[in-house]
Amino acid sequence: MDALEAIAQRRSVRNYSPEPVPVELIEKTVDAARRAPTARNVQPWEFVVITDPQVRARLAEICEYGRFIAESPVCIATFCHDTKYYLEDGCAAIENMLVAATALGLGTCWVAGDKKEYAGTIAQELGVPNSHRLIGLVAMGYAANSAGPTKKRPLKEVLHTENW
Amino acid sequence: MDALEAIAQRRSVRNYSPEPVPVELIEKTVDAARRAPTARNVQPWEFVVITDPQVRARLAEICEYGRFIAESPVCIATFCHDTKYYLEDGCAAIENMLVAATALGLGTCWVAGDKKEYAGTIAQELGVPNSHRLIGLVAMGYAANSAGPTKKRPLKEVLHTENW
Repeated sequence: MDALEAIAQRRSVRNYSPEPVPVELIEKTVDAARRAPTARNVQPWEFVVITDPQVRARLAEICEYGRFIAESPVCIATFCHDTKYYLEDGCAAIENMLVAATALGLGTCWVAGDKKEYAGTIAQELGVPNSHRLIGLVAMGYAANSAGPTKKRPLKEVLHTENW
Repeated sequence: MDALEAIAQRRSVRNYSPEPVPVELIEKTVDAARRAPTARNVQPWEFVVITDPQVRARLAEICEYGRFIAESPVCIATFCHDTKYYLEDGCAAIENMLVAATALGLGTCWVAGDKKEYAGTIAQELGVPNSHRLIGLVAMGYAANSAGPTKKRPLKEVLHTENW
């Protein structure tokens, strides 16, 4: 799929079909994530791919706004070790993952991690060492129904020319 | 350009041709940015597009690692108002902008903003109100030479299956 189209098509999908996602597609989305820009070339990221239904059910229970992780066949948790720009790097990686997934016909939803009280609990659940912080979780799978178009602020409103 | 190819092709470009960038292309990159995911649908972003050479020279002077903003025909500064997830939202928007620019044949480089001492100075320079924080600056233009491939940690190293 064309890059601009994938960016425009991306939606937050909260209803998933139980159909499993081929490993090759999961790997392509993580491959896209690791190609993100990174300050000072630190590449602080690690990606944990979870398909186990019991673990997903547990993650869904922990995340107040991520209940659908129990239904989405895949969940990818992104962690970064603590650097000055760990959050910028991790978020750029997650956004690459979402755009790539859309291009591959997959639905996703980004569930917040950093600054969430449950960040440490999720890390513990997945055996992640203290050196790394949760950036976010991505639910992934085939959408059960087509999500409506996202209402976004129009271009004219957000684009300022030469100055504010 | 295909989405996965654009993600793979993206490089940090620090040498720019003086050739100006058509307004339609600049707008397409900002249009991609505003389509990013945003926590609680806040959409806290604003994008200031700077082409004025004098202003770019001033920005380049302020940013220790953004000297090339004086040479790149375009600089896009992303600001967000202060919400819990302002940095996640702003970074997802910037990453969309970079991927879209690559797909359109443009080179870019993300220059850090948030947590930089100069963030307030840049905001002041562009007439941005105190309510908004600089997320980052993107230099944009046609690459003067083809940047070499970025060395990234291999997929095997960053991908963890089921747990750490």
